[in-house]
Amino acid sequence: MPVTTRFTTAFDLTHPVALAPMAGAAGGALAAAVARAGGLGLLGGGYGDPDWIAAEWDRAGDAPIGVGFITWRLTPAVLAAALARAPKAVMLSFGDPAPFAAAIHDAGVPLICQCQTLDHAHAALDAGARVIVAQGAEAGGHGATRGTMSLVPELADLLAARAPRTLLLAAGGIADGRGVAAALMLGADGAMIGSRFWAAAEALAPAGFHQAAVAANGDATLRSRAPDAARLLDWPAPFTIRTLRSAFTDRWATDTATEALRADAPARDRWAQAQATGDAKAGSPVVGEAVGLIHDIRPAADILARISSEADQRLLSLP
Amino acid sequence: MPVTTRFTTAFDLTHPVALAPMAGAAGGALAAAVARAGGLGLLGGGYGDPDWIAAEWDRAGDAPIGVGFITWRLTPAVLAAALARAPKAVMLSFGDPAPFAAAIHDAGVPLICQCQTLDHAHAALDAGARVIVAQGAEAGGHGATRGTMSLVPELADLLAARAPRTLLLAAGGIADGRGVAAALMLGADGAMIGSRFWAAAEALAPAGFHQAAVAANGDATLRSRAPDAARLLDWPAPFTIRTLRSAFTDRWATDTATEALRADAPARDRWAQAQATGDAKAGSPVVGEAVGLIHDIRPAADILARISSEADQRLLSLP
Repeated sequence: MPVTTRFTTAFDLTHPVALAPMAGAAGGALAAAVARAGGLGLLGGGYGDPDWIAAEWDRAGDAPIGVGFITWRLTPAVLAAALARAPKAVMLSFGDPAPFAAAIHDAGVPLICQCQTLDHAHAALDAGARVIVAQGAEAGGHGATRGTMSLVPELADLLAARAPRTLLLAAGGIADGRGVAAALMLGADGAMIGSRFWAAAEALAPAGFHQAAVAANGDATLRSRAPDAARLLDWPAPFTIRTLRSAFTDRWATDTATEALRADAPARDRWAQAQATGDAKAGSPVVGEAVGLIHDIRPAADILARISSEADQRLLSLP
Repeated sequence: MPVTTRFTTAFDLTHPVALAPMAGAAGGALAAAVARAGGLGLLGGGYGDPDWIAAEWDRAGDAPIGVGFITWRLTPAVLAAALARAPKAVMLSFGDPAPFAAAIHDAGVPLICQCQTLDHAHAALDAGARVIVAQGAEAGGHGATRGTMSLVPELADLLAARAPRTLLLAAGGIADGRGVAAALMLGADGAMIGSRFWAAAEALAPAGFHQAAVAANGDATLRSRAPDAARLLDWPAPFTIRTLRSAFTDRWATDTATEALRADAPARDRWAQAQATGDAKAGSPVVGEAVGLIHDIRPAADILARISSEADQRLLSLP
């Protein structure tokens, strides 16, 4: 019998788990699979490519999904198109949610804000967030420096003092039921999971990257700015991107090399090619430290069922 | 009724909590207070000053305490003097435990090894460790880069496969009962707690540092090498030291500035003076990200009782 939390009740879920809206990887098939299995499925709206979003949303069919965006790249038009789909939630990460909050509230859609610091959480509450995601540095992809273990209870205390009806999810380093159970103990109402679902059969990740991730342990990742430089993306501070280490990051992850990469078009092209073909040595599979807890590629519904079952076992068989 | 784990049973404890043997801060009074209150009290043997260790051990009286050392600075003579005290355990952190393991085993003393990576854990098991501490980067003082949230379950899996009788503690970012409960969910047998006990009345920390820590939130720390450069300590990779941010770290924490600090004797003297007097702006209070969960200075026994009570409440009032 899955655990019930304020999060499962508010979003009518079977499991207190949300899919992280991973840019490029959380397409319609993955978001729909998580939603149909009883979690919160969020499409990875990422940098806001309207054609990609429309195609992937169509692919989700009638599954009740939401969508997440990289806030500093979001435009009112892209948000309006998403709101026209009546999403189950809109998540904003990495930037000030204030400019977009009114449109989301006016549409009657719950706003989820991912936060890496206390200041981010205050900004999210100012914007009327229904859910705060406390994202620790363990997470794959973009993030900052605070660890999940203390950020979650500290934001739980902040919500208790300032906005006790606002829900809290823990993100970063969670890939199994142990992590979900720990998140609930820390004061969260549920967990947001990225890497474990990135390693789902439905995720938009090349086979070579999946194989590299299954073979890797949790020490095999790092945070850097090199993959952003390879795309000429100007990510604001304090955000860096966690990926697997590779020949690419060995070569380009220092500050000096990362700057040089921006001027080296052939090197940037080689990286883009590696990302497209799934060459994990020349590219940068985007996963977090929880990759050490991932040992297979499975359908998302199986992954979610296992996570939930393991969490229940942990929570009900106390020491 | 406090939770019972393999750790409490093996070490005859009331609470599944160990005091981190914080160099300079975990003196005899603090170690004894934790031990008498039912936790595992470990003296901060640190860099191995024999006079300091002898005086602080005497101060612990007849309390059954153990001791922890910085492995790369430990000498056989200092270890022998500690073993002559019949410690409850010896903990080794930051370096290869192999050269010291035989002496510890021969004395019949349990060996605890603190680990920041999978390789460290394998070395600890090779050395016959009775307990592994999975230390996440959230921790105050020296540490590395992995976050607690995924390192703990990954090392739990390693122990299950390779050494199922070896115990596991979680460290880094844990300052209250929520963190202890989460540690147990992640697969640990208990938690090692530093910063919260650093903020105990018995800790050897100046009042100015205590005041700065109580006022700080968890975003107010950073990892750097500047405090080590100020002491001309040659810490090996991958270790850095987490402290509160201050005017000192603002000035000296970049790689270039840290190197310059080694050659700047007056600046190093000013830092040493600030450490001695408790000037948190010119110095570096050594605390972790869990500082944002610390709001008062209390006797260690009170702290431990509250942590344990809160953990029990969490574990027994499931969602």
